[in-house]
Amino acid sequence: MTSPAVEFARQNYPRFLDELKALLRIPSISTLPEHNSDCRKAAEVLVAELKRIGMENTRIIETEVHPLVYADWLHAPGKPTVLCYGHYDVQPTDPLDEWLTPPFEPTERDGNLYARGSADDKGQVWAQIKAIESLMVAHKGLPLNVRVLLEGDEEVGGEGIATYVATKPADLKCDFALISDTELFAPGLPTLCVGLRGMIYTELEVRGAKQDLHSGMYGGAAPNPFFALAEILTGLKDKNGHILIPGFYDDIIPPSPEELAAWKSLPFDEEHYRKTEVGSRELVGEAGFSVLERTWARPTLEVHGIPGGFVGAGAKTVIPAKALAKVSMRLVPGMTTAKAFSLYKNYVDLLKPAGVDVEVRLIHTGEPSLIRVDNPYIQAATTALHEVWGKDTVFIRSGGSIPIVGDFDRHLGAPSVMMGFGLPDDNIHAPNEKFHLKNFSLGIESLIRFMEEAGN
Amino acid sequence: MTSPAVEFARQNYPRFLDELKALLRIPSISTLPEHNSDCRKAAEVLVAELKRIGMENTRIIETEVHPLVYADWLHAPGKPTVLCYGHYDVQPTDPLDEWLTPPFEPTERDGNLYARGSADDKGQVWAQIKAIESLMVAHKGLPLNVRVLLEGDEEVGGEGIATYVATKPADLKCDFALISDTELFAPGLPTLCVGLRGMIYTELEVRGAKQDLHSGMYGGAAPNPFFALAEILTGLKDKNGHILIPGFYDDIIPPSPEELAAWKSLPFDEEHYRKTEVGSRELVGEAGFSVLERTWARPTLEVHGIPGGFVGAGAKTVIPAKALAKVSMRLVPGMTTAKAFSLYKNYVDLLKPAGVDVEVRLIHTGEPSLIRVDNPYIQAATTALHEVWGKDTVFIRSGGSIPIVGDFDRHLGAPSVMMGFGLPDDNIHAPNEKFHLKNFSLGIESLIRFMEEAGN
Repeated sequence: MTSPAVEFARQNYPRFLDELKALLRIPSISTLPEHNSDCRKAAEVLVAELKRIGMENTRIIETEVHPLVYADWLHAPGKPTVLCYGHYDVQPTDPLDEWLTPPFEPTERDGNLYARGSADDKGQVWAQIKAIESLMVAHKGLPLNVRVLLEGDEEVGGEGIATYVATKPADLKCDFALISDTELFAPGLPTLCVGLRGMIYTELEVRGAKQDLHSGMYGGAAPNPFFALAEILTGLKDKNGHILIPGFYDDIIPPSPEELAAWKSLPFDEEHYRKTEVGSRELVGEAGFSVLERTWARPTLEVHGIPGGFVGAGAKTVIPAKALAKVSMRLVPGMTTAKAFSLYKNYVDLLKPAGVDVEVRLIHTGEPSLIRVDNPYIQAATTALHEVWGKDTVFIRSGGSIPIVGDFDRHLGAPSVMMGFGLPDDNIHAPNEKFHLKNFSLGIESLIRFMEEAGN
Repeated sequence: MTSPAVEFARQNYPRFLDELKALLRIPSISTLPEHNSDCRKAAEVLVAELKRIGMENTRIIETEVHPLVYADWLHAPGKPTVLCYGHYDVQPTDPLDEWLTPPFEPTERDGNLYARGSADDKGQVWAQIKAIESLMVAHKGLPLNVRVLLEGDEEVGGEGIATYVATKPADLKCDFALISDTELFAPGLPTLCVGLRGMIYTELEVRGAKQDLHSGMYGGAAPNPFFALAEILTGLKDKNGHILIPGFYDDIIPPSPEELAAWKSLPFDEEHYRKTEVGSRELVGEAGFSVLERTWARPTLEVHGIPGGFVGAGAKTVIPAKALAKVSMRLVPGMTTAKAFSLYKNYVDLLKPAGVDVEVRLIHTGEPSLIRVDNPYIQAATTALHEVWGKDTVFIRSGGSIPIVGDFDRHLGAPSVMMGFGLPDDNIHAPNEKFHLKNFSLGIESLIRFMEEAGN
């Protein structure tokens, strides 16, 4: 028998889609200050809708940038409490001329809804809210206690929510979090993300001469910060992608043999990935590990930019007084940001070439996270997903970092069920972002059934 | 007996100085298009003055940017012909708030004349013209044939004069060039620069993925152009400043034992140089060579900038599709730009890491040059300098490149006598540029006596 809440969702799907389109028309680009009022408008629409469907304590929570949206419904004594998370802010739209239809005019085409924010993350936020609405109507209440916390700073670092979670844990008490901001591994394949890499983002500043010098006059005597950086960088990681920082790999908890075996059976073709996603001559990285292991379960060290010196067109022969490298490391379960940074910093000091001073600055961190496949909420999720999609769930990880997952873990003691319905080709952060319409409808049904199962 | 021309110069010195100040008031900044008309005005002032003092065929020669100034006087049959060179364009003035007096308000202070262009190079150009005027009056003609060729693009690459010299060598026929755009090794120490390093300026472009990628998703699989650049750079030069390109050092003509001995006796203190000029923790470079050898007579390889990726404040985790390094090499006598570039390019191809494509582009070149100390014009110059300064001339080299010297050599077959009167602390290219007034007056006398000696 179909759940009455699912039945309600199916009957009301055209309305749900129209409402989502209205939300997508608000250009809530969090990185651009001229869209601050749009971000607030999106937050207000969400607060109003949460109130309309019967949630309580609905409110805007101010942060230093864009506000949080909060709501709860806590009338299911003895049942667990879920904290539903998503974000209403979106990425900028440039290059605008590559969009086939305007980014803030939601357009249906080939079974997809094209709009900035459709998959990342308004479509998924709306799926959560519509699941709650369907449950509320069908159950005349909810099958578990629900808190909703939505942010508007996700694309700009998420400082506001991090501070709120760290300072007000009592207001967010919950048993687990439900995060809908991830994707299926492949179309039609129900997917749960159970692990995330953490990260430390650093700046490596090298100072040589007291001022910029002319390479004709001083080349051969003055230290060149760029060469010092090149020496440090090649000292940190070898040509094969192996990180040379002593002790860096010591605490890694490797994936279980079962997890590795499951990854091998995923529909993943390295050559297709190389050609279509990366587009490079070869893939790189540590020998003896597959691409999925290297990107999901191995730490990496990357350089993102080397500001300093002369970067214009043509020729200028400066030996700059200083230069900087933006260096980040991705960490995997077992590692901590504190220890990784300490090992890195100490080793950079050892690598420091003659003639220069080096300063290592920590800009940003996020702990790695992992949820066990036998966690009861993961089990509830797989039951729900099997029912809706007719297939066994695949458990994947992500090489990226979702810092809020670490924050929920650390401050609330809550594991995160990352149940998202994007697709790998949804063009999030790029022109022509889309959300597959079937994933919107089945996403709502999956979330309904998951909350019902989690309430049992 | 003092030369009548020197006598004339001494009597007219106050007027010469006033005229120089007028020239310095013209803000002929060649890098800034809004000063194009000032550059032309400076050129016109010079043409008018050259005509006034009796030079012939005085004219503006158009180039693609700022015009050349030409004049000649060729009525000394049987005498050699000198080509006098200098430039009337100046560097920008920023940071303007560090100037004690306005850069285009020439101000006398402590025996110096402060103004942008005072030492580099209007003061020296004016010294040449005033020497010619003094000779013209005292000799009722000139003791040798004189051509004057001044440029207005020296601070922006000197393309115009290079093209002119290459295409019109017959119009510039001469026996030697007299370049007044260098400095004394120390105050009061008559100096001739007899060697210059050449250079090749290149761009090293590395391309990895077809588009920018997120380091969370792709770190561990996608090639990072910055790491490829770091590997190539550390493969090109070792930690001790030794260039690793095979064959790079093969053709070097080392300084003679006499030249090396003379350098040892120059008033040069490495520790003072480290502290006051470079200001770094240590000096760097090849072991077994002094600072003067390393900067004057050894090739070097430097990086000037590494554009690409993310260079803003904060954290962005991009693995860029491509990155670039601005790499130049200084070359010393015996080496050629063509061979050095070919060796470099071939070796970069060998160093190319897996997964990336590398393109090496040649942006700019200048051949190294060296004039023998026993050249008769150098001998004439030392005689003149000894008479005016009361001291033996020191022969130095410069680590920098003056491309026009190579052009005069190649296209006109003319060696260059680099007789300049700047001082190491003249702040050329920096705030509070100055010209030592005594160097202006003794410079004029030196140039007068040199031309008289060269005519003998």
